[in-house]
Amino acid sequence: MKPQPAAVGRPRSGARRLPAATAREEILDAAAELFAQRGYAATSTRLIAEAVGIRQASLYYHFGNKEQILAELLEATVRPSLDYAADLERQSAAPAAALHALATYDVGVLLTARWNVGILYALPEVATEPFNRFRAERERLRETYRALTAAAAPAGADAVLGDLVFGLVESVIGIRRDLPVAPPEELQRAVAAAVLRLVGADARPA
Amino acid sequence: MKPQPAAVGRPRSGARRLPAATAREEILDAAAELFAQRGYAATSTRLIAEAVGIRQASLYYHFGNKEQILAELLEATVRPSLDYAADLERQSAAPAAALHALATYDVGVLLTARWNVGILYALPEVATEPFNRFRAERERLRETYRALTAAAAPAGADAVLGDLVFGLVESVIGIRRDLPVAPPEELQRAVAAAVLRLVGADARPA
Repeated sequence: MKPQPAAVGRPRSGARRLPAATAREEILDAAAELFAQRGYAATSTRLIAEAVGIRQASLYYHFGNKEQILAELLEATVRPSLDYAADLERQSAAPAAALHALATYDVGVLLTARWNVGILYALPEVATEPFNRFRAERERLRETYRALTAAAAPAGADAVLGDLVFGLVESVIGIRRDLPVAPPEELQRAVAAAVLRLVGADARPA
Repeated sequence: MKPQPAAVGRPRSGARRLPAATAREEILDAAAELFAQRGYAATSTRLIAEAVGIRQASLYYHFGNKEQILAELLEATVRPSLDYAADLERQSAAPAAALHALATYDVGVLLTARWNVGILYALPEVATEPFNRFRAERERLRETYRALTAAAAPAGADAVLGDLVFGLVESVIGIRRDLPVAPPEELQRAVAAAVLRLVGADARPA
């Protein structure tokens, strides 16, 4: 259960794990690993640069500070699902079908990112200004779940039901942290089915 | 959305908020506030002692280190619900009724603690040795939800359903962090009802 020791003070073992990646992507990847395993406060830009095997000055060419790196990582956990929800809306999908599809997609995004960045949502720093855009986008995603839930649920459903749906989808972040995770497809299917039961729209959408 | 500024470098404003509390309780309360609002890494035992208005040596009389304080705070988020689950078991409550009662109680514990300590579950430090007991107790609580879910759900239910129920209950930690929270009773009722829909045992237990 101990966090993996990070390669402090030297570049990583040599086997680049993202061989075709740009420097920018390598920085994001190394930072995500360090933030998730050592913690955000305990990770400096110097440490990130060392993990990538570049000079700190090179890191600053791509990112102004550590906040910008975290903001970009966090935004990448919600933006694909927002884009996908916009697609569903353009296709005028029925609410229950759209909810099922969005939950499936969103759980896939949260489970298949290389590092479980969602565990950083609760950092106190995320309440500050550099993360305004992330928080606004996550709220838009929450609003999307609320609107679809309200449209899919029977009249008189709990006002908080959309937030519970959103919470159920994001609970895969904790499941991924705490448990040996089954293939993502199993959890995607289970969560999407659970969302429909939660909103009282059980029949699997056509 | 900014975290509240903490009273750095001096005792709190003078109006003790826990007038009848022991020194030990005051330390736990001040630490919970600082951990939740400034972050765990950014909070030193010196800062906690200053917030209480005691010397650091006095703090060390009660707690060996910062880890012990966090461990005690975290354990207090799961132990009452474990005790309650044991009571339910002694009463031989029916599985769906027990699940409804436990979810109601557990959500109450998570919502009514003075500080939202559950947001600290994701700290990387929590994977280390001083938190073994907390993690073991939280796993026992998860196992309790799994067992009750398996007993209450129809045959052939998803293996992961108990974990989703646990995730739904703990999602109130994020709701409390992100949203202006309605009266706890509303969320307790909504989550407990949602849990029964999730496991397919909708009829409100008698």
